[in-house]
Amino acid sequence: MQASDSAISANSPNASALPSTTALCDAVDREFAQSTKRLCDFLRIPSVSTDPAFDGETRRCAEWLVDALRALGFTAEAANTIGHPMVVAHHPGVGPDAASRPRVLYYGHYDVQPADPLELWTSPPFEPAIVDGPRGTRVVARGAVDDKGQVMGIVEALRAWHALAGGPPCPVTLMIEGEEESGSKSLEPFMHEAKARLAADVCVVSDTGMWDVTTPAITTRLRGLVYMEVTVHGPTRDLHSGMYGGAVPNPINVLAQILAGLHDDERRVTIPGFYDGVGELPASTKAQWESLGFSDSEFLGEIGLSAGFGERGRSTLERTWSRPTCDVNGIFGGYTGKGAKTVIAAHATAKVSFRLVSKQDPAKIARAFEEFVRSRLPVGCSASFESHGANAAIEVSESSRYLAAADAGLKAVFGKAPLLIGTGGSIPAVGSIQRILGMDSLLVGFGLDDDCVHSPNEKFELACYQNAIRSHACILREFAQLSR
Amino acid sequence: MQASDSAISANSPNASALPSTTALCDAVDREFAQSTKRLCDFLRIPSVSTDPAFDGETRRCAEWLVDALRALGFTAEAANTIGHPMVVAHHPGVGPDAASRPRVLYYGHYDVQPADPLELWTSPPFEPAIVDGPRGTRVVARGAVDDKGQVMGIVEALRAWHALAGGPPCPVTLMIEGEEESGSKSLEPFMHEAKARLAADVCVVSDTGMWDVTTPAITTRLRGLVYMEVTVHGPTRDLHSGMYGGAVPNPINVLAQILAGLHDDERRVTIPGFYDGVGELPASTKAQWESLGFSDSEFLGEIGLSAGFGERGRSTLERTWSRPTCDVNGIFGGYTGKGAKTVIAAHATAKVSFRLVSKQDPAKIARAFEEFVRSRLPVGCSASFESHGANAAIEVSESSRYLAAADAGLKAVFGKAPLLIGTGGSIPAVGSIQRILGMDSLLVGFGLDDDCVHSPNEKFELACYQNAIRSHACILREFAQLSR
Repeated sequence: MQASDSAISANSPNASALPSTTALCDAVDREFAQSTKRLCDFLRIPSVSTDPAFDGETRRCAEWLVDALRALGFTAEAANTIGHPMVVAHHPGVGPDAASRPRVLYYGHYDVQPADPLELWTSPPFEPAIVDGPRGTRVVARGAVDDKGQVMGIVEALRAWHALAGGPPCPVTLMIEGEEESGSKSLEPFMHEAKARLAADVCVVSDTGMWDVTTPAITTRLRGLVYMEVTVHGPTRDLHSGMYGGAVPNPINVLAQILAGLHDDERRVTIPGFYDGVGELPASTKAQWESLGFSDSEFLGEIGLSAGFGERGRSTLERTWSRPTCDVNGIFGGYTGKGAKTVIAAHATAKVSFRLVSKQDPAKIARAFEEFVRSRLPVGCSASFESHGANAAIEVSESSRYLAAADAGLKAVFGKAPLLIGTGGSIPAVGSIQRILGMDSLLVGFGLDDDCVHSPNEKFELACYQNAIRSHACILREFAQLSR
Repeated sequence: MQASDSAISANSPNASALPSTTALCDAVDREFAQSTKRLCDFLRIPSVSTDPAFDGETRRCAEWLVDALRALGFTAEAANTIGHPMVVAHHPGVGPDAASRPRVLYYGHYDVQPADPLELWTSPPFEPAIVDGPRGTRVVARGAVDDKGQVMGIVEALRAWHALAGGPPCPVTLMIEGEEESGSKSLEPFMHEAKARLAADVCVVSDTGMWDVTTPAITTRLRGLVYMEVTVHGPTRDLHSGMYGGAVPNPINVLAQILAGLHDDERRVTIPGFYDGVGELPASTKAQWESLGFSDSEFLGEIGLSAGFGERGRSTLERTWSRPTCDVNGIFGGYTGKGAKTVIAAHATAKVSFRLVSKQDPAKIARAFEEFVRSRLPVGCSASFESHGANAAIEVSESSRYLAAADAGLKAVFGKAPLLIGTGGSIPAVGSIQRILGMDSLLVGFGLDDDCVHSPNEKFELACYQNAIRSHACILREFAQLSR
């Protein structure tokens, strides 16, 4: 966690006018106790975007963020959308050189996943707890790392620039959405509409992870996602399983049969055409991944598993970074209370998602899934579908000068270069930004594998939070040394 | 719905001392408005035995019934058990002949199924609604027919005897339990303990159905039931499906795979040894069933189905009366709220029940199911099990003099003989009574197929309720003409 000026910035003619990386990191460190307090304030607002019961809180969260950005000299607003507000903020940059420097767009999200199952949390999910762990102090709360902690990494880095230089050295725009966890329905319409305000040269997204607590990473591969809800309908009402059992289709049994049929014995997905557009990994990338020293036993042991389970003949990194999947994320039907009820339910529902890679076409896969289900229904059953999102996989160029600048900024903070990695998760915004705003995103994130993202007891190591702030401050310094 | 004295009773030397069937039916009819009011009072008490939240109401329901029986001259109590109270009541019978007449034990249950899904009820489940339907007036409430309406059929028949003769003509005992819908855990211990008090010559159970609204039935075949809850455990916590998906076992997918494997393409259950003890139907019984004029299209059409679905090569009556089954009665796991959550759940649960026939051994099938599940778990997954009941199938003798007496009593009310039928449902008490108290049960019930038993909007036709009271009154008159 050394903070020394990097090789690039020391040689740059532009660098003398900028605060040093040491000065930036010192400013971050002086303010860090307050930065933590502000993160906790942000975490206290239960901005669960997927559940309409939290709509008021989600708006309040957007407004909290707007206020924080205005205090740093940004023009900011919680712009209305068809869904939750979009926080959009702008600063022209300070000094006469700002206009000639790259325009930076930051993307993140202020909404969070639902907190259930609540009973598994060791402290209430929306009352941030500062607790000691094996890697130092951490903050435990829903959204701690996904993505409020990472958004605050950016905001607090801008605060360091504000303190040292009166503002950022480059023109900076932030677009922080409130629907990342619920399908980002407003994001693309908003980008189309606000295209001019969002114009930039590089986009930085902070919603990914580090390699480990001392090794930073830049993510260059992201899986896509198709998320479908399917309901199988059978008899027009719930039935007594004694009187009707054995003579009528049971929607839960039918649904289980269909879901089971989604994989073959090799754990490959059986939907016709599913693997269209899935390429094999280049040998060079495969070799690079093998050299990472990834530990299966550590990755799986941490979640209580002794062995992986997935597509035959693939390593765990391949399975999570470069292979498509199908998972049932939720299922319900019939009697789910205590004890017994001898009922045949009228319908049963599953939430099914597919992680996509390479050139898989989300729309085609959604259609193929519907067809797959319909073709397997017995007479008397029907199915209805609801889409909760569809986006393609992303591969980001590994040779841009912005990636080199981020590499330098991270080296200044960590004393070692970031690894270029993949991730199994999806950040739909990255594809939209590429398509609508015409630029690649730099995925620089500070989460760890054991952060319990989307799980009870989500946490963010304060060491990671502090390095996130330092890193964004230093990366911005590197950007400032490039010309537009 | 004629009420004329039957052939048997007219010729019996004992008959002259007894009120005529006409007098009994008239007494029932005069009181019927009040009988309906009392049924509604009984239905208003939400005695949901499976849910501990209703324990207080379940006890209150037992005490209501005790009071009703005491008012008819019975010694009655709500006896404590390891679970819900057992209502047990006794009357020695009136007159000098009573002691030489058969002792009659009535069995029923005052507990009810849970009412959910509540939103599908057209009126609140515990506020009985008297509404018009295609067959006249009906009462809509949870428990209307299963089994409070049928229990009140017995109670109100005893009231007619009380009004006309000061009490029943035979020694009568009632054993009305509060756990039929939740596994009858206290029933057998209670019967062992109270064996002397429960001694009788014939048991009458009223928890089954008629053939149709004008044709009575006596049920001589009942399927058994094994009800298991299985939970598949995978990772130690919920996971982000992006970060882990494709590399770890997903308990919902694993559970679906196991449940799907329970049936083969012929819709036969695949658990090894499952069909041990399942006999083929005798040709004579099969011929009798075929002559019943059962209508597939009516039975299935009423629940919105155009075709049956079950074991290949079997008729609907065979499937529901004489073949074993496997149904998933409930399933839950992962995210079940609105919208999307990209989670791999740590566990998933299904409630799975098997209907048994002939000599299938419930304990053996429960063990075989556990073994079936365990043998299909991938490395890293485990399973836990909870039993919610296990009882064997029942076949009742069709040649007893008590069945002939019931036949005569029903003829007196309906003007035609009852059909001897099977039923797909289970009444575990019938097996326990056979085993512990040493007597067969006469299954005389007054439900209809469309009564929505265990479903929203459960109802009991008032015409059926009235005939139930008349029939129990007249059957008791027939019993009184037999000697012990």
